[in-house]
Amino acid sequence: MALLPDLGTEIVIPVCAVIGIIFSLIQWVLVSRVKLSPERKEANNNSKNGFNDCLIEEEEGINEQNVVLECANIQSAISEGATSFLFTEYQYVGVFMVAFAILIFLFLGSVEGFSTKSQPCTYNKEKFCKPALATAAFSTVSFLLGAFTSVISGFLGMKIATFANARTTLEARKGVGKAFITAFRSGAVMGFLLAANGLLVLYIAISLFKLYYGDDWEGLFESITGYGLGGSSMALFGRVGGGIYTKAADVGADLVGKVERNIPEDDPRNPAVIADNVGDNVGDIAGMGSDLFGSYAESSCAALVVASISSFGIDHDFTAMLYPLLISSMGILVCLITTLFATDFFEIKAVKEIEPALKRQLIISTAIMTIGIAIVTWTCLPPTFTIFNFGAQKVVKNWQLFLCVAVGLWAGLIIGFVTEYYTSNAYSPVQDVADSCRTGAATNVIFGLALGYKSVIIPIFAIAISIFVSFSFAAMYGIAVAALGMLSTIATGLAIDAYGPISDNAGGIAEMAGMSHRIRERTDALDAAGNTTAAIGKGFAIGSAALVSLALFGAFVSRAGVSTVDVLTPKVFIGLIVGAMLPYWFSAMTMKSVGSAALKMVEEVRRQFNTIPGLMEGRAKPDYATCVKISTDASIKEMIPPGALVMLTPLIVGTFFGVETLSGVLAGSLVSGVQIAISASNTGGAWDNAKKYIEAGASEHARTLGPKGSEPHKAAVIGDTIGDPLKDTSGPSLNILIKLMAVESLVFAPFFATHGGLLFKI
Amino acid sequence: MALLPDLGTEIVIPVCAVIGIIFSLIQWVLVSRVKLSPERKEANNNSKNGFNDCLIEEEEGINEQNVVLECANIQSAISEGATSFLFTEYQYVGVFMVAFAILIFLFLGSVEGFSTKSQPCTYNKEKFCKPALATAAFSTVSFLLGAFTSVISGFLGMKIATFANARTTLEARKGVGKAFITAFRSGAVMGFLLAANGLLVLYIAISLFKLYYGDDWEGLFESITGYGLGGSSMALFGRVGGGIYTKAADVGADLVGKVERNIPEDDPRNPAVIADNVGDNVGDIAGMGSDLFGSYAESSCAALVVASISSFGIDHDFTAMLYPLLISSMGILVCLITTLFATDFFEIKAVKEIEPALKRQLIISTAIMTIGIAIVTWTCLPPTFTIFNFGAQKVVKNWQLFLCVAVGLWAGLIIGFVTEYYTSNAYSPVQDVADSCRTGAATNVIFGLALGYKSVIIPIFAIAISIFVSFSFAAMYGIAVAALGMLSTIATGLAIDAYGPISDNAGGIAEMAGMSHRIRERTDALDAAGNTTAAIGKGFAIGSAALVSLALFGAFVSRAGVSTVDVLTPKVFIGLIVGAMLPYWFSAMTMKSVGSAALKMVEEVRRQFNTIPGLMEGRAKPDYATCVKISTDASIKEMIPPGALVMLTPLIVGTFFGVETLSGVLAGSLVSGVQIAISASNTGGAWDNAKKYIEAGASEHARTLGPKGSEPHKAAVIGDTIGDPLKDTSGPSLNILIKLMAVESLVFAPFFATHGGLLFKI
Repeated sequence: MALLPDLGTEIVIPVCAVIGIIFSLIQWVLVSRVKLSPERKEANNNSKNGFNDCLIEEEEGINEQNVVLECANIQSAISEGATSFLFTEYQYVGVFMVAFAILIFLFLGSVEGFSTKSQPCTYNKEKFCKPALATAAFSTVSFLLGAFTSVISGFLGMKIATFANARTTLEARKGVGKAFITAFRSGAVMGFLLAANGLLVLYIAISLFKLYYGDDWEGLFESITGYGLGGSSMALFGRVGGGIYTKAADVGADLVGKVERNIPEDDPRNPAVIADNVGDNVGDIAGMGSDLFGSYAESSCAALVVASISSFGIDHDFTAMLYPLLISSMGILVCLITTLFATDFFEIKAVKEIEPALKRQLIISTAIMTIGIAIVTWTCLPPTFTIFNFGAQKVVKNWQLFLCVAVGLWAGLIIGFVTEYYTSNAYSPVQDVADSCRTGAATNVIFGLALGYKSVIIPIFAIAISIFVSFSFAAMYGIAVAALGMLSTIATGLAIDAYGPISDNAGGIAEMAGMSHRIRERTDALDAAGNTTAAIGKGFAIGSAALVSLALFGAFVSRAGVSTVDVLTPKVFIGLIVGAMLPYWFSAMTMKSVGSAALKMVEEVRRQFNTIPGLMEGRAKPDYATCVKISTDASIKEMIPPGALVMLTPLIVGTFFGVETLSGVLAGSLVSGVQIAISASNTGGAWDNAKKYIEAGASEHARTLGPKGSEPHKAAVIGDTIGDPLKDTSGPSLNILIKLMAVESLVFAPFFATHGGLLFKI
Repeated sequence: MALLPDLGTEIVIPVCAVIGIIFSLIQWVLVSRVKLSPERKEANNNSKNGFNDCLIEEEEGINEQNVVLECANIQSAISEGATSFLFTEYQYVGVFMVAFAILIFLFLGSVEGFSTKSQPCTYNKEKFCKPALATAAFSTVSFLLGAFTSVISGFLGMKIATFANARTTLEARKGVGKAFITAFRSGAVMGFLLAANGLLVLYIAISLFKLYYGDDWEGLFESITGYGLGGSSMALFGRVGGGIYTKAADVGADLVGKVERNIPEDDPRNPAVIADNVGDNVGDIAGMGSDLFGSYAESSCAALVVASISSFGIDHDFTAMLYPLLISSMGILVCLITTLFATDFFEIKAVKEIEPALKRQLIISTAIMTIGIAIVTWTCLPPTFTIFNFGAQKVVKNWQLFLCVAVGLWAGLIIGFVTEYYTSNAYSPVQDVADSCRTGAATNVIFGLALGYKSVIIPIFAIAISIFVSFSFAAMYGIAVAALGMLSTIATGLAIDAYGPISDNAGGIAEMAGMSHRIRERTDALDAAGNTTAAIGKGFAIGSAALVSLALFGAFVSRAGVSTVDVLTPKVFIGLIVGAMLPYWFSAMTMKSVGSAALKMVEEVRRQFNTIPGLMEGRAKPDYATCVKISTDASIKEMIPPGALVMLTPLIVGTFFGVETLSGVLAGSLVSGVQIAISASNTGGAWDNAKKYIEAGASEHARTLGPKGSEPHKAAVIGDTIGDPLKDTSGPSLNILIKLMAVESLVFAPFFATHGGLLFKI
């Protein structure tokens, strides 16, 4: 048995989760010290960072009080817009969740005809497990819990982000370091809240379910898979709906503002400008958060299901079974230390230190976490144990499991660095793309697409190696914990990811509040670094999604009683090729959705410019709220077709074609989707930064391409616009496609195994 | 036994092949009646088509003799350029083929240590087969034969195409019908020569090899697989090298000519204009021809290998074994009748009849061929037989095999129609893309990409259904004959495909020879229809490539002794995900290749404009030959990296990771590559035709977007330029990737099975 007693486990996990929550609250308090009211006292605090020299700075010709008031007003408009989007979304989410919960209950309950009698377990036929009706009921409950946790985390993240953006702007007056810390702390609130909440709710759910299930671990953890499905279903709304929202507002605002009216980005006269800023929060904060939360919940659930039917479950080794949760607990502590490196141990003094500081976060968290994994592995696992491997038990040693988690963790770091290399304008790939703008938009697009395709190579090898190592050592359990390894530093990952949109918003607020060029330059520098970290975050998200889906796929196959998924059978092969097609179908839908939603926005913005007198002259205020409403309604409406594709495919394929074809579909969509997702994100990120590279004109080469408005710059802007839906909507949404189909299949596996394959039965 | 005796088979196949060759020679003679010398007699021939009214037409203000002379000169320049490319290519091909032939001999010979002793057969261990050394030697010979046949067919196709282009221009003076018939007849020469040559050489090789092998069918047909590899290796040069050539010349000519110097397309002052016209022949005639020939040879070989170890081979039923060749023989007769519908039974009288006439070719050939397949099936196959199915024998009825072939044939037609729907500007998808040009190039690109993604859906379902039907009925043999079914009308398919570049060239020649606007309009109308048929041809090519690769994959798995390819093993899964990545890597390479090659062309064109005095004023002639040479050299050099990726991947994976991982790689690249290939071709085709839609201004809607030079038109031109490498280089090249890797694996299967998987053995 493991070194850590069960009682220790029962203490360690909730304590770590609570530490995470307290830490995030402390960060929140620190951020809130920046006052958004005109009395200017806060500047005297926290002087140890040595930016006192900046304190005397005053905005030229602008009344100090007015600026703060203006910032506060804009912030509250953004916050209101974001809240209004979330509440509208939640209405639909509510209806969907209730309907889907009923569906889950009916499908799973029907497996044994709603019997309340105990039945032989799925894997260990000699034992009796709780009735299918209980599994149905508890799965439904855990589904709702997962969805609810995701909602809460997304909502709080959004609140802190819209709370922090104006504060970042104000801090930028004191220097780039202060602004950086404010933005980063706010990101950390989001990161820690999400990681700790997810862990805590999951732990509480397990503890409560245990009261009923006792030591029927198989039944307990099968019911818990609903938690992953709940988190992932929410992510559908967050990622796809949010992705459509943000790009509809962005593209809509740009098409009328920049192209037709020739006013700058983030100009307060543009009616869609608030919607655009709301979109950054909706897409990159709530969307990314729900996506990663989904991955986290799913990989935990997949690992727990396998653990319950391995020697851990058979021997009733509670600590070993909760190994996934212990890894996450350790992750919270590691990320806590890592965060201090950014906020307290070092100081940012110049613009050029921002990106290295963020990159250092990744390296530090990965390095410390490697030790953390080792500690957890050697204290919580017995030296040798067996893992369920498609019907057989496979002997695994604890150091092998350590390697599984570590390989996932380090693969994440490699994916992060490769993404940075291909999307940061400090390296040659983006510079080459910028250079290709000389010969026009067409070459820019060709080079950008080629860059995206090329950027897939190393991440795929990294994923393939992690899969090979973890799969060989510990079958599907290995894959699941590799995914958890990649996600173990989720708090830090989310912090640097959420930092991006907060900085982006801060820049927008500076522009709208009419602050000086210097402030805007500082927020732009923060934002440029945020672009790269956003791409890195997307890389993590898709990398972990690939591992998670594979783990879920493995769990599905086990649960559905399929022993081999042989490509050389027609049922599987047609699933494989159709599955590989689904990401294309889905991308076509999401890209079209952005187009349609943007068009509605364009019409409204044009209408306001034409009907509100004095708007262009700045004498009248635009009607921001209507634009927010249009973006909200359009995004919800437009996400229905792609959402339906994701939700219905497993149900239709499983019911009519059976589990073999469904296995093929899952494998096909996984191996094909991960490629498109990576290439779409990186192509979009590269175009965005190629444009920024030309605009910033920081090098001799960049200056030959600029300035703003030159022909190469125009070509770069076209690339950037094309990249918007690719990198923020269709690309990241594919994570949801591959994960949600897998987890849905897993939850419905007993139904498909019993009643599925209708077409072939006829 | 079958109705048709073996002697009948031995007569029918060569006779049909010879009929095809004679028919193509007749077409050649008919085309050559159009005289390219100034004496104007030819116009009085062939008056039965009723275009005599056109005969009186004279070019306004242009001396008749000069026009003909000018056309003849341009034609000979194009012809010389094409020949020079081919001969340069053949030098490299020669070296490659010799080196690869040696490699084949060494690898296959080494399987049994170059033993000259007979050995137990691979499948029927009780029988003794010819020694591995013989297999090595005969495989090498058939490899060289396949390559040689492809070279000959490509060379002759190119000759007739460059022979026909100026003749089409001259005939256009008499009316669009005459020009259509000339272009179509020339395409038919290419189509029939290729189909008949391929069949004849394959048949002769089988007959000669039989002298040595006797009734060791297994050994005989295993050696014959080299024929497919030879054809496919040539296709690597034809498709990839040709694809890079054509787009390097095209993009290079446009970037300097259209963008910098503001001169029209096909202007004789542009030094790259001849290279551009050569490129059309190199890419679409020789490239497409070698691609389809490769598919044809491979699917025949795959079917033959399986047949040899099924009851056909066991019972020494020669006729049934040669069923694939008999289907192709019937195909030649059916296409012959179909061709008469275009050239003799009906007449084209107006521009709007062109596209329907070409479409009718597809429908007629498919309909008649369905009957043809039925005849061949019921006369050549026994009512019941068994087919080798991964180790077991599966009982199949002849009507089931009929359905396998027919489902492939009809899937091809469906793919053709869907491609037409998504790429012809007569339907809403392309019109929507054109409409999106209103808001600029960015929306054009987004809509175009979404269209390409969407266009994948139905073709994939069509392919999946064919796979399911043929796989279920007759395992891998079913897939191979389904591919043959799709390719059975190859002569007609190639005719309408080759018609495109011939018309394109005819238009270019009309422009360069300074012929009137009316002539140019007619050739443009021919060309616009050719654009759609080119897209249809690409659809066929990729559809058949998918089926062929699967058949080869199945044959490889059988030959390598793998019984299941289970996705749920780490070795296979990493193969699958890395395989799915290869098309992206390969596309990144080919797109970059086009960029680099085009850049070299741009430099040379600029140099000529800057250094040759009087070039822009039309007083001096540009140096066409240097541009042709640059395109030639660049394309050969740039195809090395993608070529190496294709050729080395199976060798490396097979040698170091073994046959399971290689199986995964083949399956992954197949299911992922087919999607990118279809979407790339269709996106490119749609952009091209969206541009043409705006330029032609044939409808009210189109006129609101035009005319040439308007902002929407400029946006459309950007889309068209992006689409060029997608639809003509990276997209179609993927066919080669998936086929060549599969056939190479098949040929080297015994080596991999014996010596492969080094890394896992250590």
